[in-house]
Amino acid sequence: MKVLVINSGSSSIKYQLFEMPRSEVIARGLLEKIGEEISPFRQKSGRGEVEIKTRVPDHEAGLNLIIRSITDPETGVVASRNEIAAVGHRVVHGGEEFTGSVLITPRVMAKIRKYADLAPLHNPPNLMGIRAARKFLPGAVQTASFDTAFHTTIPDKAALYAIPHHFYHRYRIKRYGFHGTSHRYVARRLAEILKRDKTELNLITCHLGNGCSITAIEQGRSVDTSMGLTPLEGLVMGTRSGDLDPAIIFYLADKGYNPKEINNILNKQSGLLGLSGQSNDMRNLVALREGGDPRAALAIDIFCYRLRKYLGAYLAVLGRTDAIIFTGGIGENNPLIRTLTLQGLEGLGIRLDEKRNRLTRAVEGEISAPGAPIRVYIIPTNEELRIAGDAYEIASRRPGNAIGPAASKKRRRK
Amino acid sequence: MKVLVINSGSSSIKYQLFEMPRSEVIARGLLEKIGEEISPFRQKSGRGEVEIKTRVPDHEAGLNLIIRSITDPETGVVASRNEIAAVGHRVVHGGEEFTGSVLITPRVMAKIRKYADLAPLHNPPNLMGIRAARKFLPGAVQTASFDTAFHTTIPDKAALYAIPHHFYHRYRIKRYGFHGTSHRYVARRLAEILKRDKTELNLITCHLGNGCSITAIEQGRSVDTSMGLTPLEGLVMGTRSGDLDPAIIFYLADKGYNPKEINNILNKQSGLLGLSGQSNDMRNLVALREGGDPRAALAIDIFCYRLRKYLGAYLAVLGRTDAIIFTGGIGENNPLIRTLTLQGLEGLGIRLDEKRNRLTRAVEGEISAPGAPIRVYIIPTNEELRIAGDAYEIASRRPGNAIGPAASKKRRRK
Repeated sequence: MKVLVINSGSSSIKYQLFEMPRSEVIARGLLEKIGEEISPFRQKSGRGEVEIKTRVPDHEAGLNLIIRSITDPETGVVASRNEIAAVGHRVVHGGEEFTGSVLITPRVMAKIRKYADLAPLHNPPNLMGIRAARKFLPGAVQTASFDTAFHTTIPDKAALYAIPHHFYHRYRIKRYGFHGTSHRYVARRLAEILKRDKTELNLITCHLGNGCSITAIEQGRSVDTSMGLTPLEGLVMGTRSGDLDPAIIFYLADKGYNPKEINNILNKQSGLLGLSGQSNDMRNLVALREGGDPRAALAIDIFCYRLRKYLGAYLAVLGRTDAIIFTGGIGENNPLIRTLTLQGLEGLGIRLDEKRNRLTRAVEGEISAPGAPIRVYIIPTNEELRIAGDAYEIASRRPGNAIGPAASKKRRRK
Repeated sequence: MKVLVINSGSSSIKYQLFEMPRSEVIARGLLEKIGEEISPFRQKSGRGEVEIKTRVPDHEAGLNLIIRSITDPETGVVASRNEIAAVGHRVVHGGEEFTGSVLITPRVMAKIRKYADLAPLHNPPNLMGIRAARKFLPGAVQTASFDTAFHTTIPDKAALYAIPHHFYHRYRIKRYGFHGTSHRYVARRLAEILKRDKTELNLITCHLGNGCSITAIEQGRSVDTSMGLTPLEGLVMGTRSGDLDPAIIFYLADKGYNPKEINNILNKQSGLLGLSGQSNDMRNLVALREGGDPRAALAIDIFCYRLRKYLGAYLAVLGRTDAIIFTGGIGENNPLIRTLTLQGLEGLGIRLDEKRNRLTRAVEGEISAPGAPIRVYIIPTNEELRIAGDAYEIASRRPGNAIGPAASKKRRRK
């Protein structure tokens, strides 16, 4: 079954076409700068690379371009768009309602629109992608996978903020968490690698990319995560501050900044970029640090120190932890960050094998020292595959479709 | 030597008169509602209790009343105000400059005024108390002990927020921390109890009162603390939210609240009060919880859960931890809070002796199980005694005064 996975952002569409259940990527591509003068488009597949620069006014035109590229007689990978049996959409915010991936119906679309109040930058473009896919691929099963779904198991004591209770009832202010598909994917992969059932494992998963979050997973369920109502809370990120004294906002307001400006500063000019004054890219900062740049070194120190504190907090949340997983661009590729974060934690059961840590990059592997009570792994994330798997399962369960093995297994469990 | 300790708030003055170095309290009292129609005043001493209700227009009149009460021929405890050799003032904010208690000079007063920008509710009334004491006790040595001083050892990686660097340089936005005198006092007491030098101990001190903060102390030095630029950050408190997604403020601003209102909500209507909707007093909440009140139970759960996360974070910061100390009204008197916070942490080396935990209230004592790697203690705080001790040391070092043993020891070390 061909499954198309779509991540539709405010001015871009990322996609991968999978052959399922083989989990094989048969094409992937990216369209950027939708609505600008020139929208660059690239696709890679077994039939070569395509690059197009053209004007793409909106998401509908964008998805049309993508589907034409996939089905192009010369460079495409499928003969007809009818071969695409399912489309899995990444949707950022599913509120408290969506606890897993779902078949998209008009009711689901209305809910996604409703939760745009909580994710105004993400849910509206996600919806544009869904509408375009329904138009151009009317025969395909459309599914939604939510960044928040995996975290709907977080208990109230971790999800509620210590603010007046009516703010939760009136405005639904609580910790939703994000990156759920990634945390779920790497946790599931580790259970497979260890040949253990996920309900036997307590894990801490560190997703460190341009956005960063960390999740405590108890017996397969997310019980706490560092991002909150929005992706601003938690760890230091590329341009986001993560945690800070909320009163800093009032202090800056007293100095003459308005809420919009402060919001922009904390989301776009803070984090590694704000601390270093130079770059939001950890690779650049590591190079600058090696060249003796003190501010790059400080930015890295703060990044790792804050991550270490969350790790400690989640060790206390879980009580017993089996393994820590690093994923995301920084998590998978940056041995220095892992070393600085974990060094000196031998007393808590964490010991890196420094050689394995240096040599393991962007591949699955254990990097803890033999015999360490808490094992440490690198597992490259693959949110698209997780979304494709969910879309495949949902499509397989529909009347008239073959039942795949994963889907039937899931059915039996329920 | 008689040492008067003054804690001058916006509409109140608290004081204790000590006989030093015996550390004996010879009188204590509280004047409230300064500037209102009636300002209630109470004093307790070996010569009985005094209660006066009168009109006290300002802090100067307030301190005059206090000194008259201390020296009253009938109910006072000293024959003349000249017997008061030193006055130790509690000052909330000492910025980055004051790393310990100091003799008050005009330059010091100018600095306290300067740091009022960072503590607008506290430093101005602190200064009023200093001015009044200089006027009515001109012969006494005046010293200032800062809530922030103990935390000036916190390294940059823990003190700096991940916001644009120029905010630190221009506005001095950083983690200052508070309750420093309390954290320092209990850490020092535990070293005395254990007959160890403070530089041999790594401690986590939990000050849980109406305000709450937790500090990681490495070899006698504060290396991290939960309060930040202001006392709003960190743990759940009586009416303060502690940590939250900073974006909640922008979300509420979008809903029509202005920054002043939100500031007031987070400082005055949040925390235990906001969560429970009933009380900011932990004793009430414990009673309500026992009666089956679910919101009181939730407020307590969140309070303990957040404290547990900080404990875990600081275990990771310290690497090796010798002991955890509970202090402050809640920390000293509430066995339920200590149980809920620490249960399930055996894997991290923490085990309570539940009987000792239940029976130890408001007295010094160990409450961990014999043989637990990390020991747990209750140590009632005594910020006033710590301030009196500092005032005594400074006064003793001045020309014409006897050199006390503590002061000379300190001198030798320098």
